[in-house]
Amino acid sequence: MGLKGLKNASQLVETNLEQEKLAFHNTLFSLSNGHLGVRGNLEEGYFSKNHTGIMGTYVNGFYETSPIVYGENAYGYAKNHQTICKLPNGHILTFEIEGERFQLDLGTVDNHQRTLDLFEGILKREFQWTSSTGKKVVISTERFVSYQVSEALLLSYELTPLNFSGEIVLIHDLLEEELETVTAIDDPRIAARHEKQTKIEAMKEADLELLQISTIRSGLRLWTTATVKPVAGEVLAVKGTHSNQKLETAVTFAAVENEPIKIEVIVGYSEIVRDSEAEKNVKITFMQKMHQVSKQGFKQMKNQHLADMADFWSISDVEIAGDDELQLGLRLNLFHLNQAAGRDGKTNIAAKGLTGDGYEGHYFWDTEMYMLPFFVYTNPATAYQLLSYRHSILESARKRAREMGVAKGALFAWRTINGEECSAYYPAGTAQFHINADIAYGVKVYYEATADETFMAEKGLAILVETARFWREFGDYISGKEDQFCLNGVTGPDEYTAIVNNNYYTNLMAKYNLQMAAKMATRFQATALFKELGVTDSEIASWQEAGDNMYLPYDEDRQLTKQDDSFFDKAVWDFAGTPKENYPLLLNYHPLTIYRYQVNKQADTVLAQLLYGEATSKEQKQRDFDYYEQVTTHDSSLSRSIFGMMASEIGEEDKAYHYFMDTALMDLVDMQENTADGIHAANMGGTWMSLVYGFAGMKVSEGHLSFAPRLPKKWDALSFSIEFQGQIVKVTLSHDGSKYELVKGTGLTISENGHLQKLI
Amino acid sequence: MGLKGLKNASQLVETNLEQEKLAFHNTLFSLSNGHLGVRGNLEEGYFSKNHTGIMGTYVNGFYETSPIVYGENAYGYAKNHQTICKLPNGHILTFEIEGERFQLDLGTVDNHQRTLDLFEGILKREFQWTSSTGKKVVISTERFVSYQVSEALLLSYELTPLNFSGEIVLIHDLLEEELETVTAIDDPRIAARHEKQTKIEAMKEADLELLQISTIRSGLRLWTTATVKPVAGEVLAVKGTHSNQKLETAVTFAAVENEPIKIEVIVGYSEIVRDSEAEKNVKITFMQKMHQVSKQGFKQMKNQHLADMADFWSISDVEIAGDDELQLGLRLNLFHLNQAAGRDGKTNIAAKGLTGDGYEGHYFWDTEMYMLPFFVYTNPATAYQLLSYRHSILESARKRAREMGVAKGALFAWRTINGEECSAYYPAGTAQFHINADIAYGVKVYYEATADETFMAEKGLAILVETARFWREFGDYISGKEDQFCLNGVTGPDEYTAIVNNNYYTNLMAKYNLQMAAKMATRFQATALFKELGVTDSEIASWQEAGDNMYLPYDEDRQLTKQDDSFFDKAVWDFAGTPKENYPLLLNYHPLTIYRYQVNKQADTVLAQLLYGEATSKEQKQRDFDYYEQVTTHDSSLSRSIFGMMASEIGEEDKAYHYFMDTALMDLVDMQENTADGIHAANMGGTWMSLVYGFAGMKVSEGHLSFAPRLPKKWDALSFSIEFQGQIVKVTLSHDGSKYELVKGTGLTISENGHLQKLI
Repeated sequence: MGLKGLKNASQLVETNLEQEKLAFHNTLFSLSNGHLGVRGNLEEGYFSKNHTGIMGTYVNGFYETSPIVYGENAYGYAKNHQTICKLPNGHILTFEIEGERFQLDLGTVDNHQRTLDLFEGILKREFQWTSSTGKKVVISTERFVSYQVSEALLLSYELTPLNFSGEIVLIHDLLEEELETVTAIDDPRIAARHEKQTKIEAMKEADLELLQISTIRSGLRLWTTATVKPVAGEVLAVKGTHSNQKLETAVTFAAVENEPIKIEVIVGYSEIVRDSEAEKNVKITFMQKMHQVSKQGFKQMKNQHLADMADFWSISDVEIAGDDELQLGLRLNLFHLNQAAGRDGKTNIAAKGLTGDGYEGHYFWDTEMYMLPFFVYTNPATAYQLLSYRHSILESARKRAREMGVAKGALFAWRTINGEECSAYYPAGTAQFHINADIAYGVKVYYEATADETFMAEKGLAILVETARFWREFGDYISGKEDQFCLNGVTGPDEYTAIVNNNYYTNLMAKYNLQMAAKMATRFQATALFKELGVTDSEIASWQEAGDNMYLPYDEDRQLTKQDDSFFDKAVWDFAGTPKENYPLLLNYHPLTIYRYQVNKQADTVLAQLLYGEATSKEQKQRDFDYYEQVTTHDSSLSRSIFGMMASEIGEEDKAYHYFMDTALMDLVDMQENTADGIHAANMGGTWMSLVYGFAGMKVSEGHLSFAPRLPKKWDALSFSIEFQGQIVKVTLSHDGSKYELVKGTGLTISENGHLQKLI
Repeated sequence: MGLKGLKNASQLVETNLEQEKLAFHNTLFSLSNGHLGVRGNLEEGYFSKNHTGIMGTYVNGFYETSPIVYGENAYGYAKNHQTICKLPNGHILTFEIEGERFQLDLGTVDNHQRTLDLFEGILKREFQWTSSTGKKVVISTERFVSYQVSEALLLSYELTPLNFSGEIVLIHDLLEEELETVTAIDDPRIAARHEKQTKIEAMKEADLELLQISTIRSGLRLWTTATVKPVAGEVLAVKGTHSNQKLETAVTFAAVENEPIKIEVIVGYSEIVRDSEAEKNVKITFMQKMHQVSKQGFKQMKNQHLADMADFWSISDVEIAGDDELQLGLRLNLFHLNQAAGRDGKTNIAAKGLTGDGYEGHYFWDTEMYMLPFFVYTNPATAYQLLSYRHSILESARKRAREMGVAKGALFAWRTINGEECSAYYPAGTAQFHINADIAYGVKVYYEATADETFMAEKGLAILVETARFWREFGDYISGKEDQFCLNGVTGPDEYTAIVNNNYYTNLMAKYNLQMAAKMATRFQATALFKELGVTDSEIASWQEAGDNMYLPYDEDRQLTKQDDSFFDKAVWDFAGTPKENYPLLLNYHPLTIYRYQVNKQADTVLAQLLYGEATSKEQKQRDFDYYEQVTTHDSSLSRSIFGMMASEIGEEDKAYHYFMDTALMDLVDMQENTADGIHAANMGGTWMSLVYGFAGMKVSEGHLSFAPRLPKKWDALSFSIEFQGQIVKVTLSHDGSKYELVKGTGLTISENGHLQKLI
């Protein structure tokens, strides 16, 4: 595959430059800090004149809208697409010798190697190139996206002429990409791409040359800029070109054989201006930061970056002894997870992070259900920001609830950037009302792990109250169901079953949502937020009652949990008669065909039982796991990690291991053959969950942390750290027993399989 | 309303020309013969420069396609819109005096009157106009669309100068209409209009000037032409203009005060060329016909037309003594029904006939369920053609079944012109699989009433077999349902409930579909068609078995038929809390909101019980009627007639009467405020059914005709004729008793409320 791991599985190395693998590798080599994302493109841009793969520079939350066109429109449909914008690429670095622009495939390339150092967060490249006239050069580059100053991309470019001296021009471009027209795409998983998304205007402010980038309809704006600094070699001239399409700096060196010439570049992409009042401040702050970064220079910024990365790994690393490829895949996943998360309270985690524009840069339920736990237990400050984003779109969610005919509460958009629903297929979009309970679950997980009362008093409570209000209005006590509380006309996580009554997952999640809201509203009734929300006692009682009386479908004859009221009324999909190439089913069968059968795209009932394990006996879990596993295609990348964790829990060790391996290595080995479009961020989060919840059996219950280790036989040891209520414990599992070390804090009680331990 | 009935309720008269009523009246004044349709536009085109209402000239089945754009596409979705084309209007007649073109609103109009004579099928207009310079003229026009030569529209235009003599030019235009750009429309009931649909080319063949009209993507072609003949007054000059946009003839008269000048115009719209091989023949035939019509002239063609219309009314008229407005509305309905039906076996009845482009000129289940019975019992030759159309699209239906993942049989498109599905919203489109059983039901009704063995042996059997095959493959024996045969994931007629399991209507209709197929396949096993279809004995047995074991949902506790498995699991819609302006619900609530509740757009279970009345006891019908009536909004125009008929059957006389009156007068009084867009053809058929099936209680069972009269108190008498197996009986109901007269044939046994009568 042309990729290997080095240095104790902390470096991802590309040893062959293969055109057909480039887009896949460029996804893995993407650098990001949650604000700015830059795919791992070659410095000079495309491999050859025949473009290969997508370039892509993104700012989280910077999107353009376009009207959704429906074959047949109806009331309440999502009105607009939101599509993350492709920004001018700031990584373009190349050179000219004797007026001839470097092009990789017009010469001979030797010893080409790219290395992503996961511990350092730096992408490096080295190669030797011989021009058609025989001139040999060695190129060495480095780049990183700063966590310290999230606006900054830093690049260095060093060239050494091996067999000649003379003028060489090193050129940096901040360049608008020419977008190809993309016609209608039938695969719903790929972004609906829209042509011209932004208007770019060159401007100079103080001594800084900027490109101002404005979206045309969504009303967003940001600025980008670049400064180039020669750091080695004799400079003859520096020439700048500044237009509405690009900001170019060309540095002419008098190069000497075997002596390097080198430039360092600082590229900036500002915060987003969302309303015009903030415009001036955002711009000034951006310019100040760019000046500061410029003053510090590449080297100092790099040192800071290395320190930031070391901090990250000190708490976030997970070590597995006994499988180097897995160790590499695992670190790659954690690295990208960390890169993907918006940290400003106004952005979140896109389905592909900032490594591609698949799913249009949208945020889904994936954040809370697959990725938030990693941050909650290793980086609660980021988890706080992710939940703050949900709080920031609560007003949009209230409006959406009204549009959906629900008189109270809030309904979060199934997919969105700005808070407004932009799913153009409601049966597998808006109908997934469970996102409300998923977000509430995220609040619960965060609060339990951090005991952050301020968060609950200022934001969390609003989310819990408004989602509970929604459920109470949305559902009904149904006489035919023994007057239990029912949620009708919903789609659960399994998108191969749509618009059903009493989806078990949705009902169970909503049950706890209602109960948690009642509990927290009671606990935080002295807060200003409580008053502001106008919560009444009778409301709290009505949530508790609805939660306590939630209907949970169960088939007594089969002794199985029903995925929904009608799941067992359908015939089982003809798996034996379905050829392998007909998967994923959604690309080969009409939705009506799929919906008519018992067939799952992904974990649904099993996920519910994993999240609220206490609601179900182990025997029941085993029966449900066995049944649903048979009818699940795992056509969604969100599925295997869940089945793996449940397999751990019920003691199906082999299955747990195999599901996990498919999960952990999905992007490293391009298992779904679409990593070229971007990472599968949720699956990466699922990997961490599989280790911590699955193999280590971590649970939190009533403020208490416990473990139930079940280490796979193939590994020698597994270790990771957990931050819990301000304390950090390092957990090491081995076949000889487990070790729990308090790394930070003053004391923590944990239990392993029921045996209490006090760590000091 | 500016409309009244004259001459024993056989003429519809417009006494005021009101701009805001014009589009509505022009719909009612539309003339058609099933091939060619011309809206009742004013001769000179629009009322004023500010266009009012739509013009429209259509040829049944002449459509253009355009790709359907989905917000999110998926496998098996309908690919293309099909939209009936607006053709060059051939009715445009106007005049010039002293070089000044007549424009209605630039002078004074007196005594303006338009009359549609329903018995004659002729639209007449008379008015006096005084120009701004004081010149007075009287205009008198007539037009009709011929049944004899379905290509022909015939016009006459007479002008008498009242207070001057001098040159007057009478002008006829065959003119392409300038279409306005129509942006996205939110109301799904209105056509998605597409701009340029056709390419028009002027040509001369022999001595005939033609406009050749070709669609760009659907590959259809036809020709139109016009010939103008001066018939009164002294002609000074005749001038023709022939371009790609129009074919104009201007006749200059030396007009004399108080003496009429007059022209007669024959406009032709040819048959459709569907494949290029047929092109030459179609063109030659068309030209020959046009020559012949031209030779016969307006007067002779008119006489023939009057005779054709008299024939129509002699069998089709329904008389109601005691309510003149109703009599007028009734005749209007029958008149338009007759006009709407395609008679060439390649076309059908569009939802709005040929009176507008609402629903894009598509054919739906409406034909078989609401309109076919009228033709079966009064004009079986037309009924034969309508079913032949379904037979002609059977191959497309087979392909569609494969696309929908069903390995055998055929699935008819929910909405189509050419046989391919073009519903862009599958939950209320393709999911209405019941169209298969509806068409099979049409075959049954036709066959029972006509005993047409040839039809069954050549076409009907293929429809029955392929639909039965579909059901057998589509459905499953489900263990949880006592191993009965179930049809899951369907939408019934009620579009406010979508994608459910075991819709009672669908299951009951499919049950009889399967059984009828088994019976007919057995009866016609010696035919070539049987062999061609490759029917096997085991197949027949499997249809019979599935039909016999069809699951029919029933709620034992409530003693109610369940609309579907889950209908009673939902809360009842909050009708009390729904303001009047929120109807129709589909324009004010998201589908998910509507689907979550017990609420019906239209009759569903009640319709099933009406069609197969023998399956249900009267007491059960009463209970189901009472229940479903409460939850039905009648937001569909297909609903009231059904409830009315069932009300008749169960003896709810008042309800029967009121539902009927709303049905019968819907278009005459513009009840839904959208008759301007075209007639509600199905509802017109529902009117006839209400009288014959409802108030007269007609039933056919095992080749036997029976009646159960229940004449509303408000009427003195009701009479109509029925053709049954080649015999015609005139039925007259009065409060003194019923009369059955054999008008044609040699003997017919009927029964009234069980009492047999033999008519000779």
